[in-house]
Amino acid sequence: MDACPSPTQRSARRDPEQLLGAARAGERGAIGRLLSLVERGGEAARAVGRATFAPSASVEHVIGVTGSPGAGKSTLVDRLIAAVRAGGDTVGVLAVDPSSPYSGGAILGDRIRMQDHALDRGVFIRSMASRGHQGGLALAAPEAIRVLAAVGMPVVLVETVGVGQVEVEIAGAADTTVVVVTPGWGDAVQASKAGLLEVADVFVVNKADREGAAETRRDLEAMLEMAASFPGAARSPATSTVGGLSDPVAWRPPVLLATATTGEGTDAVWSAVTAHRAHLVAAGELERRREQRLIAEMERVMIGRLARDVRELEGGARFEEVRAELLARRVDPYEAAARLLDR
Amino acid sequence: MDACPSPTQRSARRDPEQLLGAARAGERGAIGRLLSLVERGGEAARAVGRATFAPSASVEHVIGVTGSPGAGKSTLVDRLIAAVRAGGDTVGVLAVDPSSPYSGGAILGDRIRMQDHALDRGVFIRSMASRGHQGGLALAAPEAIRVLAAVGMPVVLVETVGVGQVEVEIAGAADTTVVVVTPGWGDAVQASKAGLLEVADVFVVNKADREGAAETRRDLEAMLEMAASFPGAARSPATSTVGGLSDPVAWRPPVLLATATTGEGTDAVWSAVTAHRAHLVAAGELERRREQRLIAEMERVMIGRLARDVRELEGGARFEEVRAELLARRVDPYEAAARLLDR
Repeated sequence: MDACPSPTQRSARRDPEQLLGAARAGERGAIGRLLSLVERGGEAARAVGRATFAPSASVEHVIGVTGSPGAGKSTLVDRLIAAVRAGGDTVGVLAVDPSSPYSGGAILGDRIRMQDHALDRGVFIRSMASRGHQGGLALAAPEAIRVLAAVGMPVVLVETVGVGQVEVEIAGAADTTVVVVTPGWGDAVQASKAGLLEVADVFVVNKADREGAAETRRDLEAMLEMAASFPGAARSPATSTVGGLSDPVAWRPPVLLATATTGEGTDAVWSAVTAHRAHLVAAGELERRREQRLIAEMERVMIGRLARDVRELEGGARFEEVRAELLARRVDPYEAAARLLDR
Repeated sequence: MDACPSPTQRSARRDPEQLLGAARAGERGAIGRLLSLVERGGEAARAVGRATFAPSASVEHVIGVTGSPGAGKSTLVDRLIAAVRAGGDTVGVLAVDPSSPYSGGAILGDRIRMQDHALDRGVFIRSMASRGHQGGLALAAPEAIRVLAAVGMPVVLVETVGVGQVEVEIAGAADTTVVVVTPGWGDAVQASKAGLLEVADVFVVNKADREGAAETRRDLEAMLEMAASFPGAARSPATSTVGGLSDPVAWRPPVLLATATTGEGTDAVWSAVTAHRAHLVAAGELERRREQRLIAEMERVMIGRLARDVRELEGGARFEEVRAELLARRVDPYEAAARLLDR
């Protein structure tokens, strides 16, 4: 009907292969469209997934940046973007926020700050907020990383709030995970309680111009020391014996002081991140980590499919019958589940 | 062999019904043993679940307390325990921490503070840290609440770190959810981003003796105003039309200032919590929320069972074949999942 379809309408009509071609040719709207398809799930997401899977092997470095709310992750990501760009590479950024109807709104100040890079065509930033079922974020994130890799971003930064099971899982699913804390014993303790010691490859004590930064660094180093003496507690890839390896050269996560707002110390963070990648390659760990991630992703997909099957049971006559028994407290949730599954 | 078994050994030999009897008779070790069985899962947990399911209908009030790390949740919980005890009721407390190998260790300062109540036999405090698979916490929490109810605790407090999908889910699975923030715009914004506006029944701006408390209260009220004008964005139980209800008396979450360390304002928090329960009863919502929770729990159990089936596939010949195809990047994780499930 429309004589002149808008660019969005044009994108909407193209299939994933066409979108991928356009995205590779530099059409930014096409990248956004591919990511929207992935986020939405379903058949179109599957087609994007198939189209971007093989080329994803070419992603050079996936870097997770995580830490407590307010630790200054976005500002640090800003600095890392600049470092990647200074090296001549293009970079994709996924900012993963917990589900909230407000995530898209005006209060999302940190996303706005990142728009310093809005005019740089070598940077693509996307904020992902899963409004779907639990596990949605964990499923969509690796696919979105593959899209960014497939359209020509060799470096992908993934920023998550590092508190919570799903968020720690996403953050840990990177080649290199940077954990950001702020001065003060509380933040280090909370990072430890949230399981971030175990996933950290590089620690950054951000806002290091504040009081207590040196103490926080020392505390973290002490905790890492403790973790190293706790067999199996912390991730120590290079000492792994999987695959017959028993490499004595373990990676010890460095603890760096930085002030992302001024840029102080952020070059050293970038150096540590690239050094960690070099270590993974030398230790034969990069590929192993990626393989483990693929298998974990497949398992998550299987569980997601089965969960959908469970939801599809709802509304059926058998479901209504069991539901009534449950609500009358005649069967407990386990017995009710068994009655629905053991048919 | 042992002539004199220790109390723990005696507990270990008793079945759930016997443990329940002992727990009801005031034997605290038996309560701990029942909770350990629930946390561990498996057949013994099922037996405990069956034994405690029907009596759980008698729990009077499940209160969730959640908020950012460092917001002072544990100290506020301490004050709420005192308020419950002043009213003559016994109270159970579940402190749910994200998985960490250190949770049981010396750095868990907030658990130690709660030991103010350690000598009060009307208070039972338990720290739960799931080291198991994702979803483990969400599954174990409602069962643990039922154990506490069944052994005679009419009031149960559940404290969680309110950042992260799973944690928000657990916090929201209470009759009344208290969200704790500290002065400063950042904390309110983060609460909103984490989805806490949607689950809050009572807001507490804790550490109200600090600068900015009044502003934070005003900001939260403005956000709640915004949420109220967003249909479907915030939880507004009493305006729900489920079951033909269209009650005009909606609950508007109060925003209260408190300083838990001194006790300033915490009586008003307790009053708001009990007023919220009275509102739920008057609006016919208490039972409806509990029914929704039971159904959600049954679904989670089903998904957990299916996930276990998925893990059991591993190691099989078919799994190894598909795994090899995946790692060779010949099939993507979705196709691999389909090959394993569509047999």
